[in-house]
Amino acid sequence: MPLPLVAITMGDPAGIGPEIIAKAWRSPALLASCRPVVIGHPDVMLSAAAMLNDRRLVVAEVASVDELRASTDVMPCLKATADNVSVIPPAKVDPRGGQAAFDALKVAAELAISGKVDAIVTAPLHKAALHAAGHHYPGHTEMLADFCGVPASEVAMMLYLAPGEMIKGRAGLGVAHVTLHMALKDVFAHLTQERILASCRLAETVMRALVGQVSNLSLTVSGQVENLSYVPRIGVAALNPHAGEEGIFGDEECRIIVPAVEAGRAQGLDLTGPLPCDTLMVRAAAGEFDAVVAMYHDQGHIALKLLGMHRAVNISLGLPIIRTSVAHGTAFDVAWQRKADCSSMIEAVRVAAQLVAARKWLNWRPNGQTAELR
Amino acid sequence: MPLPLVAITMGDPAGIGPEIIAKAWRSPALLASCRPVVIGHPDVMLSAAAMLNDRRLVVAEVASVDELRASTDVMPCLKATADNVSVIPPAKVDPRGGQAAFDALKVAAELAISGKVDAIVTAPLHKAALHAAGHHYPGHTEMLADFCGVPASEVAMMLYLAPGEMIKGRAGLGVAHVTLHMALKDVFAHLTQERILASCRLAETVMRALVGQVSNLSLTVSGQVENLSYVPRIGVAALNPHAGEEGIFGDEECRIIVPAVEAGRAQGLDLTGPLPCDTLMVRAAAGEFDAVVAMYHDQGHIALKLLGMHRAVNISLGLPIIRTSVAHGTAFDVAWQRKADCSSMIEAVRVAAQLVAARKWLNWRPNGQTAELR
Repeated sequence: MPLPLVAITMGDPAGIGPEIIAKAWRSPALLASCRPVVIGHPDVMLSAAAMLNDRRLVVAEVASVDELRASTDVMPCLKATADNVSVIPPAKVDPRGGQAAFDALKVAAELAISGKVDAIVTAPLHKAALHAAGHHYPGHTEMLADFCGVPASEVAMMLYLAPGEMIKGRAGLGVAHVTLHMALKDVFAHLTQERILASCRLAETVMRALVGQVSNLSLTVSGQVENLSYVPRIGVAALNPHAGEEGIFGDEECRIIVPAVEAGRAQGLDLTGPLPCDTLMVRAAAGEFDAVVAMYHDQGHIALKLLGMHRAVNISLGLPIIRTSVAHGTAFDVAWQRKADCSSMIEAVRVAAQLVAARKWLNWRPNGQTAELR
Repeated sequence: MPLPLVAITMGDPAGIGPEIIAKAWRSPALLASCRPVVIGHPDVMLSAAAMLNDRRLVVAEVASVDELRASTDVMPCLKATADNVSVIPPAKVDPRGGQAAFDALKVAAELAISGKVDAIVTAPLHKAALHAAGHHYPGHTEMLADFCGVPASEVAMMLYLAPGEMIKGRAGLGVAHVTLHMALKDVFAHLTQERILASCRLAETVMRALVGQVSNLSLTVSGQVENLSYVPRIGVAALNPHAGEEGIFGDEECRIIVPAVEAGRAQGLDLTGPLPCDTLMVRAAAGEFDAVVAMYHDQGHIALKLLGMHRAVNISLGLPIIRTSVAHGTAFDVAWQRKADCSSMIEAVRVAAQLVAARKWLNWRPNGQTAELR
């Protein structure tokens, strides 16, 4: 099988996007897993390489994504935005930066939708710059949903850490959040049995796809990994401390989470919980679970950032295309200072390539129906 | 200065308390930091030593806490409870176990109040067994408050991890919780400026006391460490994801936490925040902060359990006595199976001894007034 073609968007040029892409280019893991192509602007990528004193790297402007094969020394870059981006000052909210991030994402999405690339990986954008450019989306996910013609409510994200020093599970550790970017006070109204179940299926889908990439148990004659017999072990977090201590500290466990877990089990999911989230995370990191379903943002993010802040990757499901992203923002505080850590970018590209190989299992939909990836 | 005399309560005999005490006795760190004495029942301690095949350890029943000097081979044990405890079955809720835990705690508290021991360290009790014995307290803290004649609302606990592989700060990392054992839904009504400020002062008090033990900067002629010039760096967590993202994800940051931080700063505390809790924990573990003030249970516990579940210690403040405890429960699932990890017990004893040396700084009160330790 040829290596998958992965489009990497440049993100906001004022942030750390260009730098982490240029740094990641030097990683053997990046080029071993895919044929990468940058969607953005060659001048910005060249500036990033120059800042890093990387004199060997040639940024080659290409007219189509498969015109040139990437190598350690050659970065194919498709110009997707106006030439004025190369003069944007670093670490500043600038409408031109927001526009450049928008343009690159749009081109990358179209390439993925039309099948010209196998997956897209996104470098961070800055929300204020995006808004200043007149694009009033909360973020990448909503834009991609729009470009793909999918309701944003049907797209979900999983935070993922590959196996490593602190992650002992053979497929790594994924965390799906039932609620995410909202006030903690609003979590209670959003916590429903349906949403918990959708997150459990999300966790199941991603981990089933990823475990195939680390398991050599049953290669079929076609070289495809058959892992349908593998059922990911999913730990479902409680909402309240001590899992509510039998109803003394809150009743959401009994009222909502237990019924959701029972419904999921009836559908064949391997669910354990609700478990107190503090010990659940320790057990999951130790390899007892492949994935955790967290009830709200900080439950999952506190754990995964401590377990590998720089390596974490976001995986989007519910889109008709494969998309991963770095799990951090534009980091204006360190932008264009050579300080940015590119581990999340390397991981995001590697995981995107893994998902391409496992795309037949990526049929998650919030309502439990299945849909095909294009 | 003589080593402090530390009373270790046996806890519920059906749980892991006796085992972790017997295991900890073999640790050089334990006997190097204090003169320990067990308060409980010698027969139970002997059974624990026998289970561990520790034939050298002599459990010596003593009539007073300073009758016999502890050594690696000699464990002085004050009988504080009835002889029927030695026949309690392991890992079962039994009123005799609850009564034994109660009795040991009462004797230990009286010894501390009367100055016969310098500090107490508590092994876990089982709440259901305690209730079955007719003692209707939620836990240790409320019992100790009662024995000491202090309102339970004026006692606070800090979760603490000493410096180690994942904790880079020179004084370790303490986490004070503004709210703790309650439903997540109830957190909002309990989150007040006064309580946040009280938790900041708690963090300040404990870390100021502990940093003196790891700093050799300014030993006075008396051998006392003068560390009043040291101001612990405290990170205050936000309640909402992304610290509320400027009010989009909740207003508790602007309404409550920011004014509390400003008030604390005006009182000379070194407070930073409110910061998104996920990155705050990473920065604190890296040594950028000595302590974190968490808004609710899981924020602090998810982080500290991942950073060192077995080593964590609880420190109580607001009592007129010094008390630490293990940061885990009776663990009936592994009780009397030789599997229990005694690290938290070793740490709890070590930290108690540290606090004795630093007792002059332990004058925390929730209202900001100071009080003397007896």
